[in-house]
Amino acid sequence: MSDNNKQKRQIKLGAFLMETGHHIAAWRHPDALASGGLDFAHYAELAQIAERAKFDTIFFADSVSVRDDNLASLSRTARADHFEPLTLLSALSVVTKQIGLIATVSTTFNEPYNLARKFASLDHLSGGRAGWNLVTSNTESEAHNFNFEKHLDHEVRYERAREFYDVVAGLWDSWDDDAFVRDKASGVYFDADKLHVLNHHGKHFRVRGPLNVARSPQGWPVVVQAGASETGRELAAQTAEVIFVAHQTFAEAQSFYRDLKARVARYGRHPDHLKIMPGIFPVVGRTQAEAEEKFDALQSLIQPTVGVSLLSKMIGGDVDLSQYPVDGPVPELPETNGGKSRQRLLFDLARRENLTIRDLYLRIAGARGHQQVVGTPQSIADQLQQWFEEEGADGFNIMSPWLPGGLAEFATLVVPELQRRGLFRTEYEGRTLRENLGLPRPVNRYAQSNHVAAAALAG
Amino acid sequence: MSDNNKQKRQIKLGAFLMETGHHIAAWRHPDALASGGLDFAHYAELAQIAERAKFDTIFFADSVSVRDDNLASLSRTARADHFEPLTLLSALSVVTKQIGLIATVSTTFNEPYNLARKFASLDHLSGGRAGWNLVTSNTESEAHNFNFEKHLDHEVRYERAREFYDVVAGLWDSWDDDAFVRDKASGVYFDADKLHVLNHHGKHFRVRGPLNVARSPQGWPVVVQAGASETGRELAAQTAEVIFVAHQTFAEAQSFYRDLKARVARYGRHPDHLKIMPGIFPVVGRTQAEAEEKFDALQSLIQPTVGVSLLSKMIGGDVDLSQYPVDGPVPELPETNGGKSRQRLLFDLARRENLTIRDLYLRIAGARGHQQVVGTPQSIADQLQQWFEEEGADGFNIMSPWLPGGLAEFATLVVPELQRRGLFRTEYEGRTLRENLGLPRPVNRYAQSNHVAAAALAG
Repeated sequence: MSDNNKQKRQIKLGAFLMETGHHIAAWRHPDALASGGLDFAHYAELAQIAERAKFDTIFFADSVSVRDDNLASLSRTARADHFEPLTLLSALSVVTKQIGLIATVSTTFNEPYNLARKFASLDHLSGGRAGWNLVTSNTESEAHNFNFEKHLDHEVRYERAREFYDVVAGLWDSWDDDAFVRDKASGVYFDADKLHVLNHHGKHFRVRGPLNVARSPQGWPVVVQAGASETGRELAAQTAEVIFVAHQTFAEAQSFYRDLKARVARYGRHPDHLKIMPGIFPVVGRTQAEAEEKFDALQSLIQPTVGVSLLSKMIGGDVDLSQYPVDGPVPELPETNGGKSRQRLLFDLARRENLTIRDLYLRIAGARGHQQVVGTPQSIADQLQQWFEEEGADGFNIMSPWLPGGLAEFATLVVPELQRRGLFRTEYEGRTLRENLGLPRPVNRYAQSNHVAAAALAG
Repeated sequence: MSDNNKQKRQIKLGAFLMETGHHIAAWRHPDALASGGLDFAHYAELAQIAERAKFDTIFFADSVSVRDDNLASLSRTARADHFEPLTLLSALSVVTKQIGLIATVSTTFNEPYNLARKFASLDHLSGGRAGWNLVTSNTESEAHNFNFEKHLDHEVRYERAREFYDVVAGLWDSWDDDAFVRDKASGVYFDADKLHVLNHHGKHFRVRGPLNVARSPQGWPVVVQAGASETGRELAAQTAEVIFVAHQTFAEAQSFYRDLKARVARYGRHPDHLKIMPGIFPVVGRTQAEAEEKFDALQSLIQPTVGVSLLSKMIGGDVDLSQYPVDGPVPELPETNGGKSRQRLLFDLARRENLTIRDLYLRIAGARGHQQVVGTPQSIADQLQQWFEEEGADGFNIMSPWLPGGLAEFATLVVPELQRRGLFRTEYEGRTLRENLGLPRPVNRYAQSNHVAAAALAG
């Protein structure tokens, strides 16, 4: 790691890339590439825009189903066809050199050996730039593609996720960093004392190991999480290195930030080793009026069918708001088995501002639960600076309204403003995602200890 | 598809790429890249050598474990650390333009939705060059990484594989080819009548669909198989488009070829729509003496520990030949639950030629059950021509002894000889793997029929 890490704390930036853009009507924007979801050149351009602007990482959400069960709505959005994130990021590793590559992969419908292997493979392919956003799958439409009638209960999902993480991290330590000597003369390819067999026997998994990939450049790919429920916070405090989170207000952000940093410390970890990066949905104009005009133009493209369905989906469970008047109040609904933190956030917002269903879907159609900032480069930088300096965030995930234009505007207008203020890098500090994020490289759990485990492989 | 397909039948070529080369001691070859298994530049070079020579495809085997339980042997081979094939091929899609990209992925320890999605994604990334080698996992070391004490029984594995295939192919037909209209003005992103819900309810899987990827350039990625048992042949006759197979003699190859082509016809398929591509392990010299010298040099690098373990592993089950004298006869052993066709092939070979254990491991250490050809470009071309013209093969998977040199020699010495004889292309016929292999593009099962299925999504 370079000496630059001793410099003052700076903002971390992720580019959240979603097909044609984060706004639900983005694909209808005159400058959006409507076919972007399955266009590699489109994503290569986005990754290169972000890398030129020195973003820490690009970030892909995921779902193992089409994202909406409502056919009328689904057919009017660009959410039904897109690349699988790990294949896409592997290809993007070739057209980028320094930016981090974070993919969301669910612990609910995968096997830990497969996942550990793919991320280690991506970390090798990219020279140490891989990150895994650990999530659980919480929609019926996903469960139906994987032999289930209903999705798993919240607590069971998290229990499985925690054990899944333990197995994956254990497999990433299968080999010492210097295990592979590859000595042609003696015929020794690896040092057998430096291979470690996990032999995990848990409630959800029995996995022996070792992984069939050498320990990767970062030791472990960076572990990212997004859960904000009590269970999600506890898991993150123990295991996450980056948190991607949704906030509507600075007060919420600060409360979450302080809570998580305190939890991290309680688990004996250094608070700096968890980077908290809320999502930000920025609409940038050279003047406030121009920014608002751009935003209004996007909002006007939302079809009501799409807006109501999106809102129902975000609340989760079996909620269908299409049976309520679109210009009436948001009804009180019982807690469902969906993503609990997001439900609470939406109901709180509706109550706080006395919103109708239409109001609420217009509010969330762009940022979808995240902080929406419509302004000039200066006013947007002001807000990021406040959150960053007053314990609201260590960085931000930039959810561009439409692509590629929205990202390009942030990169060329807001990033230079942050750099002028000394809040953001002008050159990458290191070669790996960990080095750029200022995260330590995990020491192999078997390092320094006796290597009795290796002998077990023969038995 | 271009008019070139009307030209005379030509040989199809695949480059089977395995870390440092196919020979078990390849990594010790003076010119081999010992660290090749996790070196992207190495694989990019190999893919580009094969593409310049107009190979139809590159091909990756796979295993979801380290490939040997014997630590003494494992630590002396280059088989323990390598890229996961789908991440690697996704990256290679960026540095190639026309060559096919075939990855092996097991049906035993994966979910069909995940697999269908990744291969569709790779097909989009590569502009229609993806192929899936459908296998079942038959080793204990793999089972131990996926919650099992023993691997699944042969018949159960194939039963699951067959249903897995049905689900995957069904998901690949989730969308009509022209489903995505993306009309910004009307707000219609896709035509809802052109979405199809699979609703598969079978013995092993319940998968609803649709896939969250548009139908891919090839309709379906090319389906490859490698099973040669009775069950494997039946599955291949019904579903495979390419068969990768191991033969030791021309008689075996011819018998297999005629059997499979007849089976294909019995299932109502055109025999030309299954390409049979045995593995060939070529050692090329400008003279016969030079070729034999090269081969002997490689053989001399095999460590006995490695040879005996390799042979035991290839026989499968719990067989451990290290308890028998290395210079004694190959013992008669009961049939195991491993890969049945390979066991029979090895025992037949040992009996036919009265081989000791050492003789047998020296025989299979290079080609590992495949046809070994040590000779000049002319003599190698002679043999390929005979197999090709006399119902032994439609093409070959070239298993280069060491890499990159072995592949480069085949590409620059043997390929031109095949081209001079009019047996191999001098330019690609088409843009997709299907077009180059001369395989039809599957018509969507829902095409022309009433689209009642789509309505089910909303229910």
